[in-house]
Amino acid sequence: MTDVTIIGASGYAGAELIRILANHKECKIRHLVAKGSKNRCFEEVFPSLGYLTELRGMVVGDVDEDFSLKTDPAVNDTDVVFLALPHGASVPFVKACLEKNKNVIDLGADFRFHDVATYERWYGHHEAPELCSDTVYGLVEMHRDLIPDHGLIANPGCYVTGATLAMLPLVEAGCVDLDSLIFDSKSGISGAGRGLKEGSLYGECSESIKAYGVASHRHTPEIEQNLSEAAGRPLTISFTPHLTPMNRGILTTAYAKLNEKGKKADLEAIFRNRYEGEPFIRVLPRGKMPETKWIQGTNYVIIGFTVDPRTERVIVCSVLDNLVKGAAGQAVQNMNVMYGFDEREGLTMLPIFP
Amino acid sequence: MTDVTIIGASGYAGAELIRILANHKECKIRHLVAKGSKNRCFEEVFPSLGYLTELRGMVVGDVDEDFSLKTDPAVNDTDVVFLALPHGASVPFVKACLEKNKNVIDLGADFRFHDVATYERWYGHHEAPELCSDTVYGLVEMHRDLIPDHGLIANPGCYVTGATLAMLPLVEAGCVDLDSLIFDSKSGISGAGRGLKEGSLYGECSESIKAYGVASHRHTPEIEQNLSEAAGRPLTISFTPHLTPMNRGILTTAYAKLNEKGKKADLEAIFRNRYEGEPFIRVLPRGKMPETKWIQGTNYVIIGFTVDPRTERVIVCSVLDNLVKGAAGQAVQNMNVMYGFDEREGLTMLPIFP
Amino acid sequence: MTDVTIIGASGYAGAELIRILANHKECKIRHLVAKGSKNRCFEEVFPSLGYLTELRGMVVGDVDEDFSLKTDPAVNDTDVVFLALPHGASVPFVKACLEKNKNVIDLGADFRFHDVATYERWYGHHEAPELCSDTVYGLVEMHRDLIPDHGLIANPGCYVTGATLAMLPLVEAGCVDLDSLIFDSKSGISGAGRGLKEGSLYGECSESIKAYGVASHRHTPEIEQNLSEAAGRPLTISFTPHLTPMNRGILTTAYAKLNEKGKKADLEAIFRNRYEGEPFIRVLPRGKMPETKWIQGTNYVIIGFTVDPRTERVIVCSVLDNLVKGAAGQAVQNMNVMYGFDEREGLTMLPIFP
Amino acid sequence: MTDVTIIGASGYAGAELIRILANHKECKIRHLVAKGSKNRCFEEVFPSLGYLTELRGMVVGDVDEDFSLKTDPAVNDTDVVFLALPHGASVPFVKACLEKNKNVIDLGADFRFHDVATYERWYGHHEAPELCSDTVYGLVEMHRDLIPDHGLIANPGCYVTGATLAMLPLVEAGCVDLDSLIFDSKSGISGAGRGLKEGSLYGECSESIKAYGVASHRHTPEIEQNLSEAAGRPLTISFTPHLTPMNRGILTTAYAKLNEKGKKADLEAIFRNRYEGEPFIRVLPRGKMPETKWIQGTNYVIIGFTVDPRTERVIVCSVLDNLVKGAAGQAVQNMNVMYGFDEREGLTMLPIFP
Repeated sequence: MTDVTIIGASGYAGAELIRILANHKECKIRHLVAKGSKNRCFEEVFPSLGYLTELRGMVVGDVDEDFSLKTDPAVNDTDVVFLALPHGASVPFVKACLEKNKNVIDLGADFRFHDVATYERWYGHHEAPELCSDTVYGLVEMHRDLIPDHGLIANPGCYVTGATLAMLPLVEAGCVDLDSLIFDSKSGISGAGRGLKEGSLYGECSESIKAYGVASHRHTPEIEQNLSEAAGRPLTISFTPHLTPMNRGILTTAYAKLNEKGKKADLEAIFRNRYEGEPFIRVLPRGKMPETKWIQGTNYVIIGFTVDPRTERVIVCSVLDNLVKGAAGQAVQNMNVMYGFDEREGLTMLPIFP
Repeated sequence: MTDVTIIGASGYAGAELIRILANHKECKIRHLVAKGSKNRCFEEVFPSLGYLTELRGMVVGDVDEDFSLKTDPAVNDTDVVFLALPHGASVPFVKACLEKNKNVIDLGADFRFHDVATYERWYGHHEAPELCSDTVYGLVEMHRDLIPDHGLIANPGCYVTGATLAMLPLVEAGCVDLDSLIFDSKSGISGAGRGLKEGSLYGECSESIKAYGVASHRHTPEIEQNLSEAAGRPLTISFTPHLTPMNRGILTTAYAKLNEKGKKADLEAIFRNRYEGEPFIRVLPRGKMPETKWIQGTNYVIIGFTVDPRTERVIVCSVLDNLVKGAAGQAVQNMNVMYGFDEREGLTMLPIFP
Repeated sequence: MTDVTIIGASGYAGAELIRILANHKECKIRHLVAKGSKNRCFEEVFPSLGYLTELRGMVVGDVDEDFSLKTDPAVNDTDVVFLALPHGASVPFVKACLEKNKNVIDLGADFRFHDVATYERWYGHHEAPELCSDTVYGLVEMHRDLIPDHGLIANPGCYVTGATLAMLPLVEAGCVDLDSLIFDSKSGISGAGRGLKEGSLYGECSESIKAYGVASHRHTPEIEQNLSEAAGRPLTISFTPHLTPMNRGILTTAYAKLNEKGKKADLEAIFRNRYEGEPFIRVLPRGKMPETKWIQGTNYVIIGFTVDPRTERVIVCSVLDNLVKGAAGQAVQNMNVMYGFDEREGLTMLPIFP
Repeated sequence: MTDVTIIGASGYAGAELIRILANHKECKIRHLVAKGSKNRCFEEVFPSLGYLTELRGMVVGDVDEDFSLKTDPAVNDTDVVFLALPHGASVPFVKACLEKNKNVIDLGADFRFHDVATYERWYGHHEAPELCSDTVYGLVEMHRDLIPDHGLIANPGCYVTGATLAMLPLVEAGCVDLDSLIFDSKSGISGAGRGLKEGSLYGECSESIKAYGVASHRHTPEIEQNLSEAAGRPLTISFTPHLTPMNRGILTTAYAKLNEKGKKADLEAIFRNRYEGEPFIRVLPRGKMPETKWIQGTNYVIIGFTVDPRTERVIVCSVLDNLVKGAAGQAVQNMNVMYGFDEREGLTMLPIFP
């Protein structure tokens, strides 16, 4: 059995890692660590998971400023460490783990960018730029071959996963005008995290939808990095995230102008060929669009598309669960590929419906 | 007192007309008519309104095939008739009313198009094309001067109102590339009506968001008609509606490329000048975006915008309540202008929050 | 015009007072005060109300520890002060107002109990017991005659209003076993207030229902006070509140054993006679039950009941909007009675449906 | 592998069976049958499940009036048949299956009553009373020993499971006044099924709670049957179901007067001893209450309780997922016990949170 430590176990992504890993045949949760946990038992942090699993009674380690991970059992007694922390918080943990030759899958943003300057433009100063070049960006559908036996995986952002997978095949195939890409994404409220913010109260965000971070959201350069890699040249996109009154799910509606090649191409075949054999991607027949509820609680991405002949635009919709394929599920998928487990292990759960 | 008849009183737009008109100082509801009402008392159709108002006990007239409106008291004993019917159903009622010199405000689509051919391309055969040219399209902020004393007003579509008002000032001012307009709209479930459809069940549409009618929704040509009028030349747009798990509200996120004039212009001033004095439009400071909950249950439209210098696009968000400014409220606003009442009469209600 | 000050304007009850009073013909909002408001403009505190009303730009006065209300214009320049504060916080404000001969309507619990010992058993030490005897408990349907020209009104608790009104007629009529009363209440999330608590996050309370404060909720002795007054002797009840995933509304399901008198009585007549002429109470035909959505955003209470012959119990359901009849609406109703305004003034709004 | 047929595959309970069985190691779904399915492919009936599983493309057999199950492969080629049908519809299928020596687990009400007269009083005429005595009532926690190798299992009702398990230990232990039992239950909307009813529309049931079937719901005699069996004598209860605006979950708040024995007993020990070793029951420490979200999507029941010394009542809260432990999960649990599989097989999924 592979021993697992989760650092950041009191947030929604951390809880989702636990939900998945508690049923994973190849590994065992050894340590849970969370800021402000005050060494409470896990059922006090997440009654929903704590009362139902063997984790009941497990003490959740606290992280204080003087906490030295180098000598901490949470790192020493484990094989792989999942970090589910806000950006900027991962660096000391990553360093400690790599020093001890522990594998790390980081769900935060700190190591997602090849180009440190891009990171710093959108997020601020980076504490360990030297580690960035040594990291694999873990969008499995793009980088599956790079992941095995790698020590540090940067797990992609939730919006980024949905936006990239929606447009990747058409960009790789050279079918769209690269200056025309617009991604309009609608996320469930869990995307805002478990922190206490007025905007996350039921009273404020239920029965309402809003745009936020317009023209300034930090997932923008990450989508650009992926699609630039696919296109073979730098490109710029528009990305608008919205908070939608539901717990989970991201629907991304992507718009692009078809170029001459794209107007003639069989777009459905391009999608199908690109994702053939992918265990977690489904492509719908042209004109049929997915709903986020269809993938609630699962690691799947479903993609639909249509072409508007009046405007010569292709419109692509992708749906995923932001906490699963957009976070914890993709992280486990990365671990499965890293260790050579069945890529679907722990990830076969089907959607709750309704 | 002006006597009012509502035909189509069993749907959500009909109920909203009743909610507003029951507190309107200048008029009185005389007749309610609804298909399939079987002459039930109103509280059986809408307990929420029926038990609380003087309408309790009022018999809701039924509409069957042989129903002859010409001799019906629902038309004879009234001054103004509101039609809240599916498209295609309004024509016989409109004819009967006009013959009797009754004013009509039609919330359906039948008389919204100047160009009958456009209507027929998107909706099918029109039964009374000769009446189309005699109609005023009742988007008050565009056509206020045409409405007084007019007999037949076509009330705009819900999505159309939000999309048009979001982009109207910039199109009129010549600030945007007219081929670049994209409207991504998110509507509450009430927009799908009160009909029994599997997709409108709580279990199917709660906790989920989906696109529908992509590149084919019938509000597309209506937005185009309005903005073409504003631009002074025909234009084509992309429009994608989505169903969002909330009862009311439409958020439209509109994208446009700024042209050379637009890049230099003071966009906030353009918005403010265009809507100065409008009783139901609010423009937010640049960079601040509205939420649909802010206008829940009201006749207001709130508009926010920002510019993305990286892509030279302007992104505009508008919010409205699809049943109020998007339907019944705008219809009452039209009546107020038609009769010279205070334009705000009956429409001063503030948003339910939370 | 009567000048009004609202202290506690940043919570949901405060916002609801503003929503109602902004359309009240007899009064004008002169001052808004809220803890932690940092003298921000009102639209920063409640954009939904601030951007749409003349209150835009009004500075919300802050309340700090040294704040002396005696010399504050918020009290000096006003006629009536509404307090929407947590229990325990009202005393200094009430004293300052009464000293200046200002009328006070207190939405908190501090002055609801005739018997200070009862207050102190459930809430802790009372700072001004001498004022308790001088207060009218403002459940209008019980104490309408005591309210006019009174200086200090204690506005009833939200659960209390629904539970009391559900059982009041049967208790007054002597139809039920007084030891058998059970109130099982289901409240919307706004009842938990606007404070930042993990349990109020959308992610935690949406799609879930829970009981809380079981056998210990502070509204218990207040229901007992009302029904003991109605019964003419002390009684004890069971009361269980629940948090329900909706914004507004309380449904109380009340159970009582019918006594011999009750088994023979015409219960519907008892309900109808007791509430005849009440502007905000509606009684449904026996066997028909109300839904909270029917009164969303309104000051109405709707009551339904049935009798179970197998168990000889009567089951009564009452619904109200916890922020309106359960808080701000009832407070305005009290002001209307206090000043001799039309009791319905400002309170004629009908329910948002859907 | 055990071959499974699901009849009634187009409703929510049918879908839930599929969600669970698709990941069950010991069996394989061979046939899906649903009324009105018109032999559509499964992804047309449930896209959420169809597009993600090997069931994509499986034709869903239709059931028409002349359909003879005796010769139907849906029965012939299978080992166990799950019936997820409205009450009254199971009889012909049960007969056909038993004739062919196929095992049947019936999720409907037809075979839940030992006493046919009770069934007929609440449901109407029974078509096959002779089969009732030969059935095991499959509440595993009561009848685990009777289930193995039995041919016809009647799966309990959703409300019944939660209400029974909440009060079973105290009734068995003789701690409560048997005439004082009241069950106030709050169910998610999926309990109303997937049928097209106005009351199940998002617009009607979101943001609202209501009681229904007060003093007349058909689960009442089933709870009475279970608790009478536990008490060793007939008893009568009050039961009030409510529809709550959430997809899944039932919270039952149960009230009982403690008798002399109950006042002295260690109630927590009674609960813990009764459910010790039960794989799907969790008992919380006294005074701590569960929330339905804690068991969303799982087969668990969590029970909390407290005692109110003022009224000498015990209040017990139980939560379960109405589609899992309240329907499909319990049915699979029955199958597991019937066939000697690990009782937890297929049922280890943990709750979606949030």
